[in-house]
Amino acid sequence: MTSTPKPAEARSLLAVVLAAGKGTRMRSALPKVLHPIAGRPMLAHVLASVAEAGAGRLAVVVEPGRDDVARVVAGFSGAETFPQGERLGTAHAVLAARRALADGADDVVVAFGDTPLISPQTYARLRAPLAEGAAVAVLAFESPNPTGYGRVLVEDGQVTAIREEKDASEAERRVTLCNAGLMALSGAHALGLLERIGNANAAGEYYLPDAVALAVADGHRVAVVRVAEAEAQGVNDRVQLSAAEAAVQTVLRRRAMLAGATLIAPETVFFSHDTALGSDVVVEPHVVFGPGVVVGDGCTIHAFSHLEHARLAAGVQVGPYARLRPGAVLEEGARIGNFVEVKNAAIKAGAKVNHLTYVGDAEVGEGANLGAGTITCNYDGVNKHRTVIGAGAFIGSNSALVAPVTVGAGAFVGSGSVITEDVPPGTLAIGRGRQVIKTGWVKPTKG
Amino acid sequence: MTSTPKPAEARSLLAVVLAAGKGTRMRSALPKVLHPIAGRPMLAHVLASVAEAGAGRLAVVVEPGRDDVARVVAGFSGAETFPQGERLGTAHAVLAARRALADGADDVVVAFGDTPLISPQTYARLRAPLAEGAAVAVLAFESPNPTGYGRVLVEDGQVTAIREEKDASEAERRVTLCNAGLMALSGAHALGLLERIGNANAAGEYYLPDAVALAVADGHRVAVVRVAEAEAQGVNDRVQLSAAEAAVQTVLRRRAMLAGATLIAPETVFFSHDTALGSDVVVEPHVVFGPGVVVGDGCTIHAFSHLEHARLAAGVQVGPYARLRPGAVLEEGARIGNFVEVKNAAIKAGAKVNHLTYVGDAEVGEGANLGAGTITCNYDGVNKHRTVIGAGAFIGSNSALVAPVTVGAGAFVGSGSVITEDVPPGTLAIGRGRQVIKTGWVKPTKG
Amino acid sequence: MTSTPKPAEARSLLAVVLAAGKGTRMRSALPKVLHPIAGRPMLAHVLASVAEAGAGRLAVVVEPGRDDVARVVAGFSGAETFPQGERLGTAHAVLAARRALADGADDVVVAFGDTPLISPQTYARLRAPLAEGAAVAVLAFESPNPTGYGRVLVEDGQVTAIREEKDASEAERRVTLCNAGLMALSGAHALGLLERIGNANAAGEYYLPDAVALAVADGHRVAVVRVAEAEAQGVNDRVQLSAAEAAVQTVLRRRAMLAGATLIAPETVFFSHDTALGSDVVVEPHVVFGPGVVVGDGCTIHAFSHLEHARLAAGVQVGPYARLRPGAVLEEGARIGNFVEVKNAAIKAGAKVNHLTYVGDAEVGEGANLGAGTITCNYDGVNKHRTVIGAGAFIGSNSALVAPVTVGAGAFVGSGSVITEDVPPGTLAIGRGRQVIKTGWVKPTKG
Repeated sequence: MTSTPKPAEARSLLAVVLAAGKGTRMRSALPKVLHPIAGRPMLAHVLASVAEAGAGRLAVVVEPGRDDVARVVAGFSGAETFPQGERLGTAHAVLAARRALADGADDVVVAFGDTPLISPQTYARLRAPLAEGAAVAVLAFESPNPTGYGRVLVEDGQVTAIREEKDASEAERRVTLCNAGLMALSGAHALGLLERIGNANAAGEYYLPDAVALAVADGHRVAVVRVAEAEAQGVNDRVQLSAAEAAVQTVLRRRAMLAGATLIAPETVFFSHDTALGSDVVVEPHVVFGPGVVVGDGCTIHAFSHLEHARLAAGVQVGPYARLRPGAVLEEGARIGNFVEVKNAAIKAGAKVNHLTYVGDAEVGEGANLGAGTITCNYDGVNKHRTVIGAGAFIGSNSALVAPVTVGAGAFVGSGSVITEDVPPGTLAIGRGRQVIKTGWVKPTKG
Repeated sequence: MTSTPKPAEARSLLAVVLAAGKGTRMRSALPKVLHPIAGRPMLAHVLASVAEAGAGRLAVVVEPGRDDVARVVAGFSGAETFPQGERLGTAHAVLAARRALADGADDVVVAFGDTPLISPQTYARLRAPLAEGAAVAVLAFESPNPTGYGRVLVEDGQVTAIREEKDASEAERRVTLCNAGLMALSGAHALGLLERIGNANAAGEYYLPDAVALAVADGHRVAVVRVAEAEAQGVNDRVQLSAAEAAVQTVLRRRAMLAGATLIAPETVFFSHDTALGSDVVVEPHVVFGPGVVVGDGCTIHAFSHLEHARLAAGVQVGPYARLRPGAVLEEGARIGNFVEVKNAAIKAGAKVNHLTYVGDAEVGEGANLGAGTITCNYDGVNKHRTVIGAGAFIGSNSALVAPVTVGAGAFVGSGSVITEDVPPGTLAIGRGRQVIKTGWVKPTKG
Repeated sequence: MTSTPKPAEARSLLAVVLAAGKGTRMRSALPKVLHPIAGRPMLAHVLASVAEAGAGRLAVVVEPGRDDVARVVAGFSGAETFPQGERLGTAHAVLAARRALADGADDVVVAFGDTPLISPQTYARLRAPLAEGAAVAVLAFESPNPTGYGRVLVEDGQVTAIREEKDASEAERRVTLCNAGLMALSGAHALGLLERIGNANAAGEYYLPDAVALAVADGHRVAVVRVAEAEAQGVNDRVQLSAAEAAVQTVLRRRAMLAGATLIAPETVFFSHDTALGSDVVVEPHVVFGPGVVVGDGCTIHAFSHLEHARLAAGVQVGPYARLRPGAVLEEGARIGNFVEVKNAAIKAGAKVNHLTYVGDAEVGEGANLGAGTITCNYDGVNKHRTVIGAGAFIGSNSALVAPVTVGAGAFVGSGSVITEDVPPGTLAIGRGRQVIKTGWVKPTKG
């Protein structure tokens, strides 16, 4: 219809993302597209990538009634769910988003919720031929072992057909260019092509690749865009899920190292998609970053640490065996040592919490020092309460601070104390039994 | 002797397992075959595999006087040890089990205690030719680098000889089919062949592969059964031991994932041979399963957890940094948090033990909550005693429960208490010093 | 000048080590050569290797004013720093050590501070041709992808030229033998060749490989010594740093296993360059050895343990989750359990510290037992003090020992005690509040 296509930069993009699959080989009660990779659902990876590739609208085809899937979709602007009731093939699935297609877009990309490794750059390359007049562009990869894949037949740079394994001639089976499944369609032709796809096949299903034959028959140009086989891999079972996780981790680790973080053993460090490391950060072996972690310049994350939803200012050291839970905020030069858990707590500049301690719902003042075995008793079985420790305060080892409670600046709590009342600044508080010695004591006997 | 062999399903199988090797390259005081793989001795892997392949009797040739080896053998039904005094070659070793051979069996398989990766399926394939009339079947693998291995010479599908490297012609050295060492022999011929093997060679040893030449000379059929080189690898030093461990772990991880467990980073998760995971179990990176662990459906094992001889019901969460020791029994929905050790203790449904706690020789009632730093003092230096915590009880943080002691249902223990006497249900118990504030306090000076 | 060269064993060796590079692609405030590998700076690996190869003098060319680099150099005997002010190419850098060259040496090896994997054996092989009359020897590797490297052109076994990629003919570009950069020069010719290198090139720099053309023009022999590409890899960014770390770890792990240690999962165990393991040591998965660790025969290091500057006598068991900090000395048969930190403390034979404990600045006597949750309170906010626990003493769980304090031999401390005064031998000490029960207690209400 459009004789001279719009230039690339002016073209609108609709992404139709197929996310209704059952994923039976996952053997899971969780829908396949919600299985997480690098700390967020597989589907969110796909939605983020198509959005970054320029998709202003995201039409996500979902299994009806899956609120959990809908919640992930709702996190993306311009995204809308389209329920697919019956499951009659990929073309049928795309047409579940008929209304979005009918609303019109210059370009349409069909993406798969279970193919999470396709990069934004690849989606952008896939749609590029449309701006040059192609009606359809198919994504394809070269495989040394193409058996089982549909083959992409190309003549003079144009796709002439996608041939399923079972329909392929012997010569066609020797073709190593395989159909990745993803496709871009000119918005002008998309709905017309899709609606003409039939189901005259053994399974009685409507197959998206059939759009190619229709476009070729119409005399349209069908382009092919190549991608590495690894990037095109889908996730059908949990072995493939772990392979996708590994691929994403490799990218995240490499990015972190090139940006100036030392990962002594990158293969033992696990990032979330949003982990942010400053420069000259050192991460020792065996560290896990959950979502929402920001690490400032010059920090050291010692071995066996586990962080999620935590912020570390510059020059902070944590671990080994530090566990930072949501709401841990560590200010400049703070130090969290081994077997220490911090939750919903601010550790001010230069404060030290070095051993076997639980700090929850608390504020630890600048330069304060919590001895080994300190416990903030923040929960009375019903409510959570807050502990405030002033600047420069010193909490003796093995003390329990029963919240709500405040220890004033510069105060000192004797080792082994149970502190139930506020401690004024600069004072010494002791709350423990008096020591007695019994010389007449007899050792227990074997019972 | 038998003109028409018995059909496969009716044939009895004797496995002769050679397990007397010194293993000097292991540089270990422990016999080589006792070095563990996936939490059990290498030898046990071999015995379990031949038993699964149908061996009703297991004749294990051992170094005399090794009670530790004998104990492993005793764990298998139908297994018996045969001491090998002098060590005069593999054929001599097999003949240490002469009595077992003389007792008769339709099929005999000779296995090696230090070749732990051979699967039950491979042992079954190895004996299969015997049911079709072969007198001997040798296990062989194709290797791109055959140097050093004995070559298996085959004509018209029959083995004509096994040629040692040093005796091989130039043409024979180009053969890439290598002798794996394992062999199946028809019970009717086994003893006859073995007893005729001589020791007229440089080392003066009796070599099992010489049975092939004797069988061929007798006009018997000798079959070859192929296996992947990796599966045929033996363990001679600790580098090879670690390779065998890695191979077994790869199998165990893959099996777990295909059965419906998510392993976010399978390469960092270590299973024992008997680890049992339910469906929709999530295992985060860096987890170690010792022997005897059963994990119910929907459990999450957070990073850095270590479990052995523990049972988790459905919906349990443990870790990060949870250590479950023998006798930890976690009921539905129980929660074990970070830096928590549980030993010989039942944690009832919905109970929570979230931080820095030791629970040993105890029962924690339904829905009970143990605060951070709780310690069950189960040992008085001589005897171990039991702690019982009732349903819905709340133990304030940093409390010590001095066993034997019972905290009644719904009771509340104040933070920092030392509980030495039983706490009646529904009551509040406090056992701690009274807090005092000293304003005249002077900070210590640098000494 | 020397018509008959001195024999190899009599020749002196000067190593000129170039260590002044900025390393901008590291994106680090730390000089590139100070980034650690296996627990010591990259530069120290190079200095140790050239010293082991026989270099009696080490001339290290450094960026002026880098005290941190100078301190590393000062740790090597015979080493001296030479500041390079302007940075005008590799030959210019070598000449920064002109005084060392002028002092004379039979052989000179030019090494790079950022090429840490070259082994002492390779340095020795590189200088070997000098003893046979060569004036120069260049280190080279075969690469399947030589693009970008200078090619080493060889005729009749002699190097005729080193050709930079941009100057290479098409035929020369097909050469796969690449210049690794390292070079050995006869001391008799070194200074003469180096001083004649010009800077008539695009960058106006003085290039060390130009020494080859000068030597060839003089009619000298230039030898080539081959090395594996992996060994010749330099470190230019943190991805390459992690690759170098991995290569060193692979060597250390393999060495430990062949010497008789079991590493169940070697890829998860991280050594320092100086980690010393006895025989029949078992290291479970996920263990980190910092510098200065010596482990005796028959020890077991359980999973998730972290050790640095610690000594373990024979038969010690630590972990899982043991953290041994500097000065931890564990005598025969001692046992350190989970979530236990030991710092500057001697744990005598057979003593047990099994759970959730901090032992700092202390001595724990033979056969003593510290209960779960024991804390040595060694710091009063200003000074550190010492805790001494006698042989056979028993410290009840969740006790705090306020240093300076001594618990006598055979003494018993009741659970939950705060011990502030010395406990005589054989006595029982208790320091805790008396337990009270309140029946009128009302559970807190949701606030």
